[in-house]
Amino acid sequence: MFLKFLPRDINFFDLFDKQVSYAVEAAKYFKVIVAKGTFDEESLRQMKAFEHRGDEGAYAIITQLNKTFITPFDREDIHSLAKEIDDIVDMIYTIVNRLKVYNLSSVDKNLLEFASVIEQAVLLVASAVKGLRNMKNITSIMDSCREINRLENVGDTMRDTVLAGLFEDGRDAISIIKWKEIYEDAETVLDICEDVAHVVEAIVVKQA
Amino acid sequence: MFLKFLPRDINFFDLFDKQVSYAVEAAKYFKVIVAKGTFDEESLRQMKAFEHRGDEGAYAIITQLNKTFITPFDREDIHSLAKEIDDIVDMIYTIVNRLKVYNLSSVDKNLLEFASVIEQAVLLVASAVKGLRNMKNITSIMDSCREINRLENVGDTMRDTVLAGLFEDGRDAISIIKWKEIYEDAETVLDICEDVAHVVEAIVVKQA
Amino acid sequence: MFLKFLPRDINFFDLFDKQVSYAVEAAKYFKVIVAKGTFDEESLRQMKAFEHRGDEGAYAIITQLNKTFITPFDREDIHSLAKEIDDIVDMIYTIVNRLKVYNLSSVDKNLLEFASVIEQAVLLVASAVKGLRNMKNITSIMDSCREINRLENVGDTMRDTVLAGLFEDGRDAISIIKWKEIYEDAETVLDICEDVAHVVEAIVVKQA
Repeated sequence: MFLKFLPRDINFFDLFDKQVSYAVEAAKYFKVIVAKGTFDEESLRQMKAFEHRGDEGAYAIITQLNKTFITPFDREDIHSLAKEIDDIVDMIYTIVNRLKVYNLSSVDKNLLEFASVIEQAVLLVASAVKGLRNMKNITSIMDSCREINRLENVGDTMRDTVLAGLFEDGRDAISIIKWKEIYEDAETVLDICEDVAHVVEAIVVKQA
Repeated sequence: MFLKFLPRDINFFDLFDKQVSYAVEAAKYFKVIVAKGTFDEESLRQMKAFEHRGDEGAYAIITQLNKTFITPFDREDIHSLAKEIDDIVDMIYTIVNRLKVYNLSSVDKNLLEFASVIEQAVLLVASAVKGLRNMKNITSIMDSCREINRLENVGDTMRDTVLAGLFEDGRDAISIIKWKEIYEDAETVLDICEDVAHVVEAIVVKQA
Repeated sequence: MFLKFLPRDINFFDLFDKQVSYAVEAAKYFKVIVAKGTFDEESLRQMKAFEHRGDEGAYAIITQLNKTFITPFDREDIHSLAKEIDDIVDMIYTIVNRLKVYNLSSVDKNLLEFASVIEQAVLLVASAVKGLRNMKNITSIMDSCREINRLENVGDTMRDTVLAGLFEDGRDAISIIKWKEIYEDAETVLDICEDVAHVVEAIVVKQA
């Protein structure tokens, strides 16, 4: 009971490092399978494994939070951070699942570009989240957050261009339904990365 | 003014019992009309009545929360719980509304399966929420939550199978647009049930 | 450092007045371009400017919140209010962006009706939010909130009627995909206005 009131800072940082590492693995694996254009049972199974570990990572953080009295930063920020990082992996899994359900097994140049921007953004998310353990280098954390915001804008423009192209190149409605959803979900991954960046920025501002 | 600071535990539990009972009624009625394939003015009116009572139930809880100093569990958990239970009824209403707007008046085997899983999940939600009044049987509460999570996974697989079928059976794009939305919304009801389960689990963990 | 603990009430109200004024400008401009049916580079650029100022307005409020110890009302309500007002402008921008991406450059009677209801709702949002500075006239604040709720219901009915029409008038699936999204997003603006009204109502109830 007494232990409940001791700070458990190291624990939270370790848990976040772990959780964010699943997001990085998922983003990297996503780029690999998009480059190969294979969205089969095996790629889905592998992506599901990342998603499952991400879930467990978030669950570990929330459970720890509910048991801990003193936390390294605001409780609601810990909660948001765990949830948003989880959402990154969930959304990447959702995309792969839809690619399989829609039977879209080819290399798509636009999706490959998205996968590359997503990988960059998730690596920056990992760097920003890991930076929280040691607030020595606030400038570097804030630089990562700013770069994530920039990539989210890049993603918006990419999505608009790709969607306009989808409707202009005379393809059938069913193909439009499928790809519109895939590209929008890809852009949503970047939106979620931006949400993580906002939580990290808020944590830094409050500590400053 | 003095009363404001007295515990009002019973009140909250009564309010939650009431609110969750509207969700149960909505889920049961949904299964009935899906089995008949009638989404007419009358079924929508009836479903709107549940949705309206659900709204009032949530409103009563939030109002009580804003007036009460000491609450039986964390304020943000009370808030989330009221909101998520409300979302269950809202989403079931949304489905019935769309079935009517899209003029889909036939018995659909897949939707009937969803309606059945939804009913099971909402009954478990009711059981878990009612369990909070008396924490004697934590195992039973946690069993309900685990079973809700399992049903959400069942729903995911159902949705994937049904969506893949929609695109494979050569039907026209307009029919795909309509049914894709209906099935996805049906699965969303189960997602919301899972969200309720997560809030309940958090409440139990904090009290343990 | 000492200043950090001084109340900054006036500041928050000034910041909210500013932020809500961008939402009003965006809603008015939206009605103008919908009436002209021109969704070109210039209208998008102008709408982006509102969206950008809205973002900065929200950012200023959140930053101020993170630096301030004593706030005029609950921290989470300030946070929600800033976020929801930002969401209004974001969603209006999203609609204009999609109208341009989808190359929909004509006057649409239904969209014009939505634009008019949106303008009314956003003006009421501004009135309700500004009312918070001075709680003298609670009746007037609550009246605005009630009227916003009414307009959201009006929007629901409009969307249902318009969607049913889209599917009934024999148009092609690609046109349905585009306009269905536009009308649903238009109705979402009203949903967000209702969310703001709910936060305002909660603030009033807590102060009462």
